[in-house]
Amino acid sequence: MQEAKRAVVLFSGGQDSTTCLYWALNQGYASVHAVGFDYGQRHRIELEQARIIADRAGVSYAVLPLPTLAAIGDSALVGPGDVGQTDRAGLPSSFVPGRNLLFLTAAAAYAYKRGATVLVGGMCETDYSGYPDCRRATLDALQQAIELGMEYPIEIVTPLMYLSKKETVELAYSLPGCWEALAESHTCYEGVRPGCGRCPACVLRAKGFAEAGLTDPALAGT
Amino acid sequence: MQEAKRAVVLFSGGQDSTTCLYWALNQGYASVHAVGFDYGQRHRIELEQARIIADRAGVSYAVLPLPTLAAIGDSALVGPGDVGQTDRAGLPSSFVPGRNLLFLTAAAAYAYKRGATVLVGGMCETDYSGYPDCRRATLDALQQAIELGMEYPIEIVTPLMYLSKKETVELAYSLPGCWEALAESHTCYEGVRPGCGRCPACVLRAKGFAEAGLTDPALAGT
Repeated sequence: MQEAKRAVVLFSGGQDSTTCLYWALNQGYASVHAVGFDYGQRHRIELEQARIIADRAGVSYAVLPLPTLAAIGDSALVGPGDVGQTDRAGLPSSFVPGRNLLFLTAAAAYAYKRGATVLVGGMCETDYSGYPDCRRATLDALQQAIELGMEYPIEIVTPLMYLSKKETVELAYSLPGCWEALAESHTCYEGVRPGCGRCPACVLRAKGFAEAGLTDPALAGT
Repeated sequence: MQEAKRAVVLFSGGQDSTTCLYWALNQGYASVHAVGFDYGQRHRIELEQARIIADRAGVSYAVLPLPTLAAIGDSALVGPGDVGQTDRAGLPSSFVPGRNLLFLTAAAAYAYKRGATVLVGGMCETDYSGYPDCRRATLDALQQAIELGMEYPIEIVTPLMYLSKKETVELAYSLPGCWEALAESHTCYEGVRPGCGRCPACVLRAKGFAEAGLTDPALAGT
């Protein structure tokens, strides 16, 4: 019975998680809550836009503090004498692996406290940059660990997992209210509203809308 | 080759993790690091004693901030209208399920940054109060999720998993340097040094030493 389930959406205020939020609102869950993380993101505008979208959608929005990521990514903490795994892989030294594992586990504990059994996340294997913590096989293993570790049924649902960026845009277009909300969603790495148009995130977003043959609602008024 | 591996010990400064720290130092790992979490524990003395023991053992000790737990446990955040799963189970409303999943996942990311592949934790199925996130089956699933999510080999090692409190005391007694370090380890829920002697944690600790027929070194001078 879908109706009896409560859902928590991992919500950053970006294009993908905004689409997931409206996807969840369209599933007939008993309730939908949004949860985000304050991990010291470069631009606070991400959290502000998330709040605007959650308010518009009429869902509760909790921001959980997670300074752990920045502490782990702090090279001063790790120390210069250590093996720089991340440097080897050509990633910035502040890169913290498996951060979606932390986000999902914390969100699961939050869901438990709210009596929700569904976690909805915008992880995607298709167009993504290949982060292993976005893959379905990872999430299946994590779901099992959470279920065993909390003795509580948790289902990690990922509606965008096998969609291209084009298909994600089309999904958003089909969901009531989502298109208007996307106008408020934030993507740009530079923290510019509605977007600098040049950073990798802006370029990827633009590509999806172009392939779908639709104008990004965030840019419609510009 | 055990010699080539680096280990990170989840270290709270308590009896069990102190024993784990010295167990790890006795395994011939290339290096041993201690990591703890500042999650707003009731008594800061726990972190202070952990620092003293890590210094004595000659290992680095990083404290990662994890205010996420307190935020999730905050009933004001969860809201009064929600299902109180924890209340049903007779647990305090501040209880956060699966916290060892968060500790271990964050520790794994920290280990990755240090080039360590072994996580040592004091989880125990035997005398423990039955928390499901301390069970080996949970940790096996989590290990798989971490390995997949970080694309990095992580081994969660739990030397106390199947030991009774008596056997843990005997293990500590057999490890060079551990017994003296245990004098500094902190257990008491009331934050009293060396222990109030009446709280459940003090009572459980005393039981282990009594059954082993040994005097708790923390009490030896009192």
